[in-house]
Amino acid sequence: MGLFADYALALDERRFDEWTELFCEQCHYEVQSRENWELGLPAALIYCDSRGMVQDRVTVLKDTLTYPYLHIRHLITNIRIHGETAGAYRVSASYLVLHSTEEGETKIYSTGKYEDEIVLTESGPRFRKKIVIADTSAIDNLLAVPL
Amino acid sequence: MGLFADYALALDERRFDEWTELFCEQCHYEVQSRENWELGLPAALIYCDSRGMVQDRVTVLKDTLTYPYLHIRHLITNIRIHGETAGAYRVSASYLVLHSTEEGETKIYSTGKYEDEIVLTESGPRFRKKIVIADTSAIDNLLAVPL
Amino acid sequence: MGLFADYALALDERRFDEWTELFCEQCHYEVQSRENWELGLPAALIYCDSRGMVQDRVTVLKDTLTYPYLHIRHLITNIRIHGETAGAYRVSASYLVLHSTEEGETKIYSTGKYEDEIVLTESGPRFRKKIVIADTSAIDNLLAVPL
Repeated sequence: MGLFADYALALDERRFDEWTELFCEQCHYEVQSRENWELGLPAALIYCDSRGMVQDRVTVLKDTLTYPYLHIRHLITNIRIHGETAGAYRVSASYLVLHSTEEGETKIYSTGKYEDEIVLTESGPRFRKKIVIADTSAIDNLLAVPL
Repeated sequence: MGLFADYALALDERRFDEWTELFCEQCHYEVQSRENWELGLPAALIYCDSRGMVQDRVTVLKDTLTYPYLHIRHLITNIRIHGETAGAYRVSASYLVLHSTEEGETKIYSTGKYEDEIVLTESGPRFRKKIVIADTSAIDNLLAVPL
Repeated sequence: MGLFADYALALDERRFDEWTELFCEQCHYEVQSRENWELGLPAALIYCDSRGMVQDRVTVLKDTLTYPYLHIRHLITNIRIHGETAGAYRVSASYLVLHSTEEGETKIYSTGKYEDEIVLTESGPRFRKKIVIADTSAIDNLLAVPL
């Protein structure tokens, strides 16, 4: 599904405005640890309940750029449509995010699962909901770039 | 192909009964090292020639849970249909299995290739044959969870 | 898209002649570091502007085999068609290449992105252009096997 490739590329190439555009106005974006998710705990590492909040998050990245310069790569696989809920497709996928440093080393940053709701709009498919469930619990540099 | 995503998710979320259901009654599931496979040697790390044997294998996992608690993630890509053999599709795919520890570290556990035969049944596509050919030869904790 | 799976498998199984066949006669294959690519610098790690040059490159591999024996695995995801240029599809994809040593360890060798032009020929889809943009800048053993 092209939406996931667009999502990955927009983040990897720091086109944060385009990344934001992949969400509905009324949306929900959340990053959870897998422990909390399996226990049904509400605590989230990132929590946005509108596109405005999603935008704020990446505006900080563009303006301050406090994170160390490095390359990011999202690999998204196992995309699976599970059914429909209130006009949206429920879709899951697995992800792997890799960070490459200026020294040339590539390391695993995070792996986990997306649990999404996708709606078809006039501008194309958009995320109405995106829950990132991270298997990797030790996440350094404060989740600077969204997963 | 949804079958591979279902296979990955069932293992990653420890829904072993659902995982077992993805195999035909009459099936063949085998894990080989790539060395042995390339040399045509018969020795397998795991060998099951019926769904009953596949079930036995994961029943042990559910009942004893001797493996250290951790998160597993399968990333399956490069899915390719190569043709048909006796009513089944011959399909290959590449996999990467990641383990994340409670300490928060994510490590590569195994990478390799699947060589499968898939049949379309009334309940959906099912594996009649699945050969896992593991590039990674140093596999610790005794292959507790299937690849 | 089957072409990417064929590309990955041909390299991973050292079927270099079949890998070469996936390029057009008139083709362009290039490996760049992401730094250079983002800065628009022309310096390439590998540069071939015909299938003959691509062939020469892997002929060396077959004949001399100076690279240490190991297993290679390409995982290709995020395949995305971006449009058409002069009769070819512009397609991007993300890759992860893993190396497994005889000692049994699997390590990340390179991650990055493909920017390709694919044409449909009578023999199937073929790469008219393939630019490999590597996030991983420290690449050892001299890029023995193409990315």
